[in-house]
Amino acid sequence: MSAAARLASRGRPLSRPNPAVGCIIVKDGVVVGRGWTDKGGRPHAEAIALEEAGDKAQGATAYVTLEPCAHASKRGPACSDLLAEARPARVVIGVTDPDPRTAGDGAERLRNAGITVDLIDSAEAEASLEGYLSRALRGRPHVTLKLAMSLDGCIAMEDGTSQWITGEEARAHVHSRRAMSDAILVGGATWRLDKPRLDVRLEGLEDRSPQRVLLSRGVPPDGVKVINDPAQIAQLGDVQYLYVEGGASAAASFLAADLVDRLEIYCAPILIGNGRPALGDIGLGSLAEAHGRWAFEETRQLGSDTFTAYRRIQQEDQA
Amino acid sequence: MSAAARLASRGRPLSRPNPAVGCIIVKDGVVVGRGWTDKGGRPHAEAIALEEAGDKAQGATAYVTLEPCAHASKRGPACSDLLAEARPARVVIGVTDPDPRTAGDGAERLRNAGITVDLIDSAEAEASLEGYLSRALRGRPHVTLKLAMSLDGCIAMEDGTSQWITGEEARAHVHSRRAMSDAILVGGATWRLDKPRLDVRLEGLEDRSPQRVLLSRGVPPDGVKVINDPAQIAQLGDVQYLYVEGGASAAASFLAADLVDRLEIYCAPILIGNGRPALGDIGLGSLAEAHGRWAFEETRQLGSDTFTAYRRIQQEDQA
Repeated sequence: MSAAARLASRGRPLSRPNPAVGCIIVKDGVVVGRGWTDKGGRPHAEAIALEEAGDKAQGATAYVTLEPCAHASKRGPACSDLLAEARPARVVIGVTDPDPRTAGDGAERLRNAGITVDLIDSAEAEASLEGYLSRALRGRPHVTLKLAMSLDGCIAMEDGTSQWITGEEARAHVHSRRAMSDAILVGGATWRLDKPRLDVRLEGLEDRSPQRVLLSRGVPPDGVKVINDPAQIAQLGDVQYLYVEGGASAAASFLAADLVDRLEIYCAPILIGNGRPALGDIGLGSLAEAHGRWAFEETRQLGSDTFTAYRRIQQEDQA
Repeated sequence: MSAAARLASRGRPLSRPNPAVGCIIVKDGVVVGRGWTDKGGRPHAEAIALEEAGDKAQGATAYVTLEPCAHASKRGPACSDLLAEARPARVVIGVTDPDPRTAGDGAERLRNAGITVDLIDSAEAEASLEGYLSRALRGRPHVTLKLAMSLDGCIAMEDGTSQWITGEEARAHVHSRRAMSDAILVGGATWRLDKPRLDVRLEGLEDRSPQRVLLSRGVPPDGVKVINDPAQIAQLGDVQYLYVEGGASAAASFLAADLVDRLEIYCAPILIGNGRPALGDIGLGSLAEAHGRWAFEETRQLGSDTFTAYRRIQQEDQA
């Protein structure tokens, strides 16, 4: 299932409007088919993996990160029907599809066809689908907040100079994160002052530049969407993954609204002193309230900078 | 030599007024004697190691972090004489002693006694003696600046509340660092507002509480030394290691005066937003000037907090 989840990530975010799903078909210990949701959402991962497996799918085990769909569309047949036809012995499903058109019906259709179905509630499958699941279950995109700062938490000098705090490797990493997002958001002040291009400047990935969104009360510039309030990210149609790039006040608004799922911090080995702080007011009542909200997820060195990611601790995690 | 340097650290800082030296005597691949500078500076590491080795020192190799002293004192004989008498075949020296009473004479005395002497300029020996070398070569203690802060670089809430940002493990680590220092310094405002005890509250190490120093223009409280300017650390007699604990303005003064050799940052996985920043003005002219000053040295997890240390990049390192 980990391998299927990693395959799925190849479809992020090009599979929109569909979730990026991964599928692996294994027969007698050998991988006979692999697939991930194609550009624009079709074909689905299962269809591609079954196509590759051909007759070998019969009696095999299919691993799929998300429950196979139960609804045929004019763009293609339902994957649960395709699987039923191909007659694998077993289908292992990472996560149930919350889409009401499938929600359990996909699995049932497979069982009705005599196929063993194991729903394993895989954390890796869930992580690979968190944008899709966030939209389906919370009605809003998954939100990553990026901060690039000095060791003492400054994102700019007192006069606003911020080029450059982090080095080339860190900046390239940011571009790769942009390429994995459906939309990038910055605050109105950052847009006006820094005039950021907010595009992906990595060779071969230039066409991956995501939709640009401003958090602002002003008039939208050409080709840019504007929201007045973080809560309005619910209205960002097909956006599964939103990447918030700052500045301090936009970042603080998202934190104050408890709308950040992941923190990605790039820290340069420099000290600035009385510079511009990374965040504005996040509405903290007491220091105790600040604790227990963020769980360390990963860290790595990017040149001389350190990248560290934290995951928001959900209410249910705290119990 | 690494083992000798690690032994040496057991003498820090109890060996004052002497440097903490380590000595290991090896014969036919077996350690026959070990020593580190005792409390109050005597006996010296070599004397202890030779005592343990007895006759086995003859023909052995002695590793010593600092050049054996050439000056006899009423507190004990010169170590170079002791070694010459014990007749090891070889003495390996980590660092030449800058003390004019020894400075090469110790090594020469050994050579004159027919002993092979290898001076290896060991980085580990040098690191274990950096406080002593700093005093001898720069006329001031080695300075460590400690910062304990949130992910966004705040050391307190806007109202000054700072208990607690970091957890128990991090606070215990701070106490162990205090126990390794000759003196702890805080700014006058921190002294007045936080009333810090600045002692070592670790079982068995209560007597290691170092001298307390204030950076302040006020009247010294009982049992506390006051300096008005970071440059006055030169006057702190026998202090080899100074541990600066804040606040933001004292920390900034030391950085502005380029008097910080090591940064030790404790970072809690919390966000504060518009809190008190870790540093005041450090006199930075441009963002470019901030780069190339700090080299990553070590990191470790302390409970949910992260400890990271950076070493000041000396001018000669940049060449």
